Amino acid sequence: MIFTERLEKLKSEYEDLISRKNEPTEGNGVFERYRYPILTAAHTPLFWRYDLNQTTNPYLMERFGIHATFNSGAIRWHDRYVLAVRVEAADRKSFFAIAESPNGTDNFRFRDRPVTIPEYGEPATNVYDMRLTAHEDGWIYGIFCVERRDPEAAPGDLSAAVASAGVVRTRDLISWERLPDIKSASQQRNVVLHPEFVKGKYALYTRPQDGFIDAGSGGGIGWSLVDDMTDITIREEKIINLRHYHTIKELKNGEGPAPIKTPQGWLHLAHGVRGCASGLRYVLYLYMTSLEDPSEVTAEPAGFFMAPEDDEYTGDVMNVLFSNGWIADGDGKVFIYYASCDTRLHVATSTVERLVDYCLHTKPDGFTTSDTVRRLNELITGNLR
Amino acid sequence: MIFTERLEKLKSEYEDLISRKNEPTEGNGVFERYRYPILTAAHTPLFWRYDLNQTTNPYLMERFGIHATFNSGAIRWHDRYVLAVRVEAADRKSFFAIAESPNGTDNFRFRDRPVTIPEYGEPATNVYDMRLTAHEDGWIYGIFCVERRDPEAAPGDLSAAVASAGVVRTRDLISWERLPDIKSASQQRNVVLHPEFVKGKYALYTRPQDGFIDAGSGGGIGWSLVDDMTDITIREEKIINLRHYHTIKELKNGEGPAPIKTPQGWLHLAHGVRGCASGLRYVLYLYMTSLEDPSEVTAEPAGFFMAPEDDEYTGDVMNVLFSNGWIADGDGKVFIYYASCDTRLHVATSTVERLVDYCLHTKPDGFTTSDTVRRLNELITGNLR
Repeated sequence: MIFTERLEKLKSEYEDLISRKNEPTEGNGVFERYRYPILTAAHTPLFWRYDLNQTTNPYLMERFGIHATFNSGAIRWHDRYVLAVRVEAADRKSFFAIAESPNGTDNFRFRDRPVTIPEYGEPATNVYDMRLTAHEDGWIYGIFCVERRDPEAAPGDLSAAVASAGVVRTRDLISWERLPDIKSASQQRNVVLHPEFVKGKYALYTRPQDGFIDAGSGGGIGWSLVDDMTDITIREEKIINLRHYHTIKELKNGEGPAPIKTPQGWLHLAHGVRGCASGLRYVLYLYMTSLEDPSEVTAEPAGFFMAPEDDEYTGDVMNVLFSNGWIADGDGKVFIYYASCDTRLHVATSTVERLVDYCLHTKPDGFTTSDTVRRLNELITGNLR
Repeated sequence: MIFTERLEKLKSEYEDLISRKNEPTEGNGVFERYRYPILTAAHTPLFWRYDLNQTTNPYLMERFGIHATFNSGAIRWHDRYVLAVRVEAADRKSFFAIAESPNGTDNFRFRDRPVTIPEYGEPATNVYDMRLTAHEDGWIYGIFCVERRDPEAAPGDLSAAVASAGVVRTRDLISWERLPDIKSASQQRNVVLHPEFVKGKYALYTRPQDGFIDAGSGGGIGWSLVDDMTDITIREEKIINLRHYHTIKELKNGEGPAPIKTPQGWLHLAHGVRGCASGLRYVLYLYMTSLEDPSEVTAEPAGFFMAPEDDEYTGDVMNVLFSNGWIADGDGKVFIYYASCDTRLHVATSTVERLVDYCLHTKPDGFTTSDTVRRLNELITGNLR
């Protein structure tokens, strides 16, 4: 009786949450945030978290704790907005699950089962942050981070880990073929596949790093051309977007999702990291590269494009915005899927035109306070005239 | 005039706060959180914080700043729910004070005076996190952390400290007898007394560590048998609950309050710590040990039992849940006293039956993402059938 009543209540609350209409909030003109996160732990199906059999679960208790749905790859698939969501269980292990929406801003529903990624080599402790790229070769590729304990870690050091990049491909977002992990001289996270061939080759954005957390002397977002997605070895890596002292990307940076092609160049979304007294701070920034040579930066506005605000500040890992998925519709509308604090997923919307305008007409960083004041005065002078 | 008016207002607001009814919120079936914290700095008596004499304090200003009431030992005492609260003053020193409630979830009131703990050896800089155990020998013991500056610290290093475990006992929760501190080869925090004799000896849960903050090679929750509570030396220590890579207890773990005896075994509440980009993250987990041998783990569900949520995320030390006190009533109701962010104290309620059911029917950690997906699919398959 109590079981049935409580289950009905849980179901009806769940349906209310899932079908809740979202709405844009007032923005800065460049983009609009939305009132509600689009995916939270509470959006995962009840039958993922509860054993719904009264005999084996008489108290109707959660049997599988899920507490975060965040960093998601994104793709437009026929008439649906499809996300490859990073879902984290109470045991701290994350996995991928597909959620779909008819409009891109609300009514996201998870498919009945999470994605089963075939293993490659030793079973991974963790997988996360998949970037989906529909490549002109006809495949949809997913590149994600694979994490295992560092085999050379000292016995008492239970934190040392090794990050590498795993690769899957699919034609239907249902069956996933696992390809060999990327071979690279350094650890790799934030590897992203460019959607077009460049000089007849596949092009990868990379993020070489010295250690698991530390970007170290690894300088920023790299660029590498490879022949074959079924056997990737990163041999030459050119750093195309550098870290820089006292900027929002002083400590680390990395490519977000695959760039969007625009008449004015490739539009890139990336994350930048700096340190502060309460740890690392992750923000999002935009830059553009040339259509002729996607590894040549043509515009980069000063500072961040989006940083945590209000409720976005707090969560399992504080002070973090991160994005590895966005979708540009045929009509130029852009859906930016960004997560806050490794906890929940949000959407922001804009248009290709506005984002390009932002990139081309926001002044670049001058790296000194006086240059910042100079740029501000330039704007004020124009306005007061 | 202003003095009197303001004092009346403070008094009436204080009484409203102290006598406010608390109520459970919707939970996951395993436990219920409550709407309000049960103790905050504002719950400490006005006459602790203000000089109430208009002549010496004409502006009615606070003269003794208190900003946190948290990690509390707990015990059922006749018809009262009694907490040994860690109270922290504005000067960062903490001390103990007793607060009592008639129902365990609201109307907690501090006694008129804090506890005066007799000194043992050199005066302690700080004391905190008392675990209360009603032992079958007839005494109530309190074991707490004692902190002093490291005598071998370099002159410029003002942070190096040494942690040891202090011991008091009482028969009435009014007069406290100080016993010698625990002697141990390593620093000790989170020492807890098991409530029964084991093989005719007192049994202690320990947490050996290399340094003051670092658990280092110290492997987890230890277990040690001692002859005499008035002269404790930890000679042999067996690690009964290990830390593990990429779990909620990767970096540190420690026993919470003394375990609760159930027909299915001893029920344990502990804390686990992992690192993340914004510092350490403390969550709570449960495990069970055998009635025959309380040092033998018989069940441990994967992941956390409780983690910070909503307002619990923020406070003096972010992203922390900690508990060193719970009470099981004769009817099986359990009151879990947990603090968030070293700032305030909350209660959650459950029953012995539900907590044991959670421990026995939530699958253990498989240490890989694919095992997590396997467990999830098992549950989904059962539910979709």
